[in-house]
Amino acid sequence: MQNDEKWMQRAIKEAQKADYQTWQNPRVGAVVVKENHLLATGHTHQFGGFHAERDAISKLTSEQLLDSTLYVTLEPCNHYGKQPPCSLLITNSGIKRVVIAETDPHSLVTGKGIQMLKEHGIEVVTGILTQEAWNLNPHYNYFFEQGKPWVTLKQSISLDGKVAAAKGKRTRITNQQVYNYVHRERAWYQGIIVGSQTAIIDNPKLTVSVSTSFPPVRIVIDRRGRLSNYSQLKLLNDSEAKTWIFSSDPNLKDKLAKTKAEIIYLANCSIEAVVEECGHRGLQSLYVEGGPTLHQAFVNSGLVNEVITYLSPQFIGEQGVSGMQVPAEMKLSGTNIKGLGNNVRISGRVKKNV
Amino acid sequence: MQNDEKWMQRAIKEAQKADYQTWQNPRVGAVVVKENHLLATGHTHQFGGFHAERDAISKLTSEQLLDSTLYVTLEPCNHYGKQPPCSLLITNSGIKRVVIAETDPHSLVTGKGIQMLKEHGIEVVTGILTQEAWNLNPHYNYFFEQGKPWVTLKQSISLDGKVAAAKGKRTRITNQQVYNYVHRERAWYQGIIVGSQTAIIDNPKLTVSVSTSFPPVRIVIDRRGRLSNYSQLKLLNDSEAKTWIFSSDPNLKDKLAKTKAEIIYLANCSIEAVVEECGHRGLQSLYVEGGPTLHQAFVNSGLVNEVITYLSPQFIGEQGVSGMQVPAEMKLSGTNIKGLGNNVRISGRVKKNV
Repeated sequence: MQNDEKWMQRAIKEAQKADYQTWQNPRVGAVVVKENHLLATGHTHQFGGFHAERDAISKLTSEQLLDSTLYVTLEPCNHYGKQPPCSLLITNSGIKRVVIAETDPHSLVTGKGIQMLKEHGIEVVTGILTQEAWNLNPHYNYFFEQGKPWVTLKQSISLDGKVAAAKGKRTRITNQQVYNYVHRERAWYQGIIVGSQTAIIDNPKLTVSVSTSFPPVRIVIDRRGRLSNYSQLKLLNDSEAKTWIFSSDPNLKDKLAKTKAEIIYLANCSIEAVVEECGHRGLQSLYVEGGPTLHQAFVNSGLVNEVITYLSPQFIGEQGVSGMQVPAEMKLSGTNIKGLGNNVRISGRVKKNV
Repeated sequence: MQNDEKWMQRAIKEAQKADYQTWQNPRVGAVVVKENHLLATGHTHQFGGFHAERDAISKLTSEQLLDSTLYVTLEPCNHYGKQPPCSLLITNSGIKRVVIAETDPHSLVTGKGIQMLKEHGIEVVTGILTQEAWNLNPHYNYFFEQGKPWVTLKQSISLDGKVAAAKGKRTRITNQQVYNYVHRERAWYQGIIVGSQTAIIDNPKLTVSVSTSFPPVRIVIDRRGRLSNYSQLKLLNDSEAKTWIFSSDPNLKDKLAKTKAEIIYLANCSIEAVVEECGHRGLQSLYVEGGPTLHQAFVNSGLVNEVITYLSPQFIGEQGVSGMQVPAEMKLSGTNIKGLGNNVRISGRVKKNV
């Protein structure tokens, strides 16, 4: 048991080597061990590439694999996706014992990988460092467990809680280090959401600064179709990533026909409806950048899972625009702070009453 | 010149060894150097004890001192205080050159120490690392340069900018590490100020956790004499430190006659009047702990030199009491952040338009 935890910790460390390149696949780590000696390690590769188990197993000979133990942070898959099932690879490998941290929440996998291994006489141990393994892929796990995308709300505020110097005025609150950090952070999400006001005032590109084949979809919630008068906005016209515009204006599609954006009509363009549609379209995670009206709507919807606040130690002054008001019952857990120059990143997950 | 900066840097490091025990004396560091070799170091000792120059010089023989150079962060004193003047000690020591970072702003000293040294044929160099030396004693320097105490405003806020869960409700916002930090931080100040509301609701002791012979004076601004009904408050009765109550209520003195507090009557009990009186009484620095009404009054007075914010990454909710509103022209410089567990300390000095 003690050794199992030790080697699972090692597998978790491997998983952390996988990054945003895994896209809709979870980050998984695997190690092969025999007689308490490490034989090989592996982790998820770019979306469509090797899974962690295959990555580790492919490094070893049949002789090495015989009677070995495989530690893997997530239940091996048992279906044909971009890769043949890992369960099949394992049953053919000579591995005699498989230790699994987390059962896969994906309905195509859950329990089936374990069942397949057992049917082939492999000893299966589960429940080792389950929470740690869950935390490798909060978005993926939440998406398949709850059937909706993980929502992170990101705000930038001043020391007096303001988000802009005046209504409708573009205000740079945080420093260059925050700017750089956010451009990397976006890559962990599959959709970036802004309101139409922010799209118009800031004219942002909403791109990431890391090299990735899977940039997040840029999403604008534009209920009343205000963007029809702003067809020159960068994110409507460049090819840096997909852009979706959610709107209740049935004419917006025609008005923006010459842009590269996809216009998604929703009769009721509520936060709930937008998040649900993003889920139907396979987005596991959403990063909501603002502005304050949109943040308030998300908070009111109860759909926020995490809040990331970038704080700059400056006062904007009483004439500034205040950030969102939060209900008292919205408590954070697992809060974490990180300095970025003289700015601070403050993150916390919303405690759910479930 | 390069060597002068090197050795002055060393003297500054020495000065940093002196702590709140120096009380109304500045923190000073000194090093004696000959032929680019360090002979001795010294720093200010407890109030009434050795000055830095005497501390260093007393460690050396006449032979060692002959033709040596003294680096000192502040102009040597030239008057009899708790100690005989350092200038006299130096002129009798054999030291041939004195390098000084900062001219003493204290009117009893300024320029006179330097003049005395020169009159005795000692070469005097000034202006080396002046700003760094000034920063050793911002309160002391400000007090003697501007003729009024340095005012630091300290607030504790939630992530949504609230300072209490409801009006009149004692709310612990920050964590134990902040609590401990504040109890040490207070020792750098000569007065701690709270409003009557805070004194009544929180019933604080306003003490420091460090061993010091000079705990800061505990000051309550109680314009209307509300404390007359709260004569049992801890800070009115214990002997941990002096307590001053500023009030415009002429009867408060009688009503609190049985307590240990000194009642100071001011016909106009404005922030400006209180700060001025604290200055007359020799307090070089004030640490204003709140609550929000008092903070707002201090901000409005324009007398704030520094703002220290302790932030807890939790939402209190929209029904909470908001922190002070700050005018747009109140900008901070030299901002600094420091993590205390999952809380953050954010400090900055108010830029003055002078």
